[in-house]
Amino acid sequence: MSIPTRVKLVEVGPRDGLQNEKQDVPAAVKIELVHRLQAAGLKEIEVTSFVSPKWVPQMADNAEVMAGINRLPGVRYSVLTPNLKGFEAALLTKPDEIVVFASASEAFSQKNINCSIAESIERFAPVVDAARAAGIYVRGAMSCSVGCPYEGEVAPARVGYLAGLMRSIGVQHVGVADTIGVGTPLKVQRAMEATLRHFDLDDVSGHFHDTYGQALANTLICLQMGVWQFDASVAGLGGCPYAKGATGNVASEDVVYLLHGMGIETGIDLDKLIDAGQFISDFLGRSTQSRAGKALFNKRPA
Amino acid sequence: MSIPTRVKLVEVGPRDGLQNEKQDVPAAVKIELVHRLQAAGLKEIEVTSFVSPKWVPQMADNAEVMAGINRLPGVRYSVLTPNLKGFEAALLTKPDEIVVFASASEAFSQKNINCSIAESIERFAPVVDAARAAGIYVRGAMSCSVGCPYEGEVAPARVGYLAGLMRSIGVQHVGVADTIGVGTPLKVQRAMEATLRHFDLDDVSGHFHDTYGQALANTLICLQMGVWQFDASVAGLGGCPYAKGATGNVASEDVVYLLHGMGIETGIDLDKLIDAGQFISDFLGRSTQSRAGKALFNKRPA
Repeated sequence: MSIPTRVKLVEVGPRDGLQNEKQDVPAAVKIELVHRLQAAGLKEIEVTSFVSPKWVPQMADNAEVMAGINRLPGVRYSVLTPNLKGFEAALLTKPDEIVVFASASEAFSQKNINCSIAESIERFAPVVDAARAAGIYVRGAMSCSVGCPYEGEVAPARVGYLAGLMRSIGVQHVGVADTIGVGTPLKVQRAMEATLRHFDLDDVSGHFHDTYGQALANTLICLQMGVWQFDASVAGLGGCPYAKGATGNVASEDVVYLLHGMGIETGIDLDKLIDAGQFISDFLGRSTQSRAGKALFNKRPA
Repeated sequence: MSIPTRVKLVEVGPRDGLQNEKQDVPAAVKIELVHRLQAAGLKEIEVTSFVSPKWVPQMADNAEVMAGINRLPGVRYSVLTPNLKGFEAALLTKPDEIVVFASASEAFSQKNINCSIAESIERFAPVVDAARAAGIYVRGAMSCSVGCPYEGEVAPARVGYLAGLMRSIGVQHVGVADTIGVGTPLKVQRAMEATLRHFDLDDVSGHFHDTYGQALANTLICLQMGVWQFDASVAGLGGCPYAKGATGNVASEDVVYLLHGMGIETGIDLDKLIDAGQFISDFLGRSTQSRAGKALFNKRPA
């Protein structure tokens, strides 16, 4: 399998990133971030989630954020919807795509959403049905696809099992997510291979965390398998709730640097992406988690 | 080519790392660092350099450091020696190995040591002769093998040219060094391929910087070529003189995390390596640059 010539980056900073930031971020800042990301050339942005504000207060402004975005043609705006109630609220905001999620780890599923993997699939099957009936594309995020904070390594067979369940209820695309960043290339390759037994290469993506610095190596092995869709978070927004002070989502800037360096097209303007990362990092009062972002920003003329 | 089952890590923190740190580090601290590194299982350590203290005051204590180390059998202690005067001083301290260096970039060679690449080779040819006559192994470091802060991209043919010159004067091993960290996997692969036209796979190593976050992806592509020797710097010591505030040498802990995760043996105890990184980071009053080091340290019970 040859390395793809073009990659689509799915920007998850506004949702997956900001959801894990401790500070309150006003809707206007989130909207501005989305505007800067689309100006940088991102074609898919995970904007917010429709989860109970009791559990995720950071995303309570979901409808306001969705309403405030000046949408560009050709850009897909996705939202996370864990249940029918969330989906119905999301539907009013006209997302292009919804994201449902389940864990490849039983222990994580029990601790995180208090039910088994199979039960979690049953719970959101009606969401998938409703979304597809409404003509909305459905992505599935498979969390803990390599390791779990509670049970350690997760076997590729468990990822395959989850991918099969996702497929069976009509999910159209799945992301192999290394939620705690413990993955290394061969483990990630095996998780991806297990997924590819249920989904086509065009319908899978990689979602890597840089907690242990491994995200780009994991991205490379997936590129070598022909995978051409990856999630990333501008400025590495998000941190890691399972490792104090550590990096979370891989920084979009670092992924773009890798891809452009390999001659792979992304349609993204790295300078503008760095601006977007700087904008939100300045707001949060901390420096970017992106190594490429930091090095390139610091080299700019004063 | 299959991925190697065993990798040798060459720890360059005490020399390449500390040489670029602004603070004064006493000889006793350097010696303690070397002791901790060898206790962690490192089998090759670049200890110091024998360069004029006018140019590199950080290494003026070279003889004191070399004399202070309790050497372990099976561990190789190397020193950097740019010229005969340095080599003669180094010889008194009984290194197992010397390192000579030249740049694959003409512009860098001129700016850094004020002579052409060919002239730099002529200058240290007598050092190589003297070392080999004394039975000391000679490694050559090829700096700027992917990019140069002055001339931008460096063509693989330039790396091949330098490797050929190194070979012609009797250098026994060469390291492909991405001194400013701009390399990405395919560029690194091409630089390594150019080198392998002059040296056997057993006689080359990769030396990557994480300035743009690319070091582990570059390591992975080299592993896939069968390369089994890599330089790294504990705690990511060193920074990058060409990008303010940016990361320099890849952190040894991150490389070990990658390798062990891939089932590749190193003989290194990662916990002890993290201790060594914490020791020197504490001394320098800053947090480690290693993502794996930071995440694993912060997860330890208080």
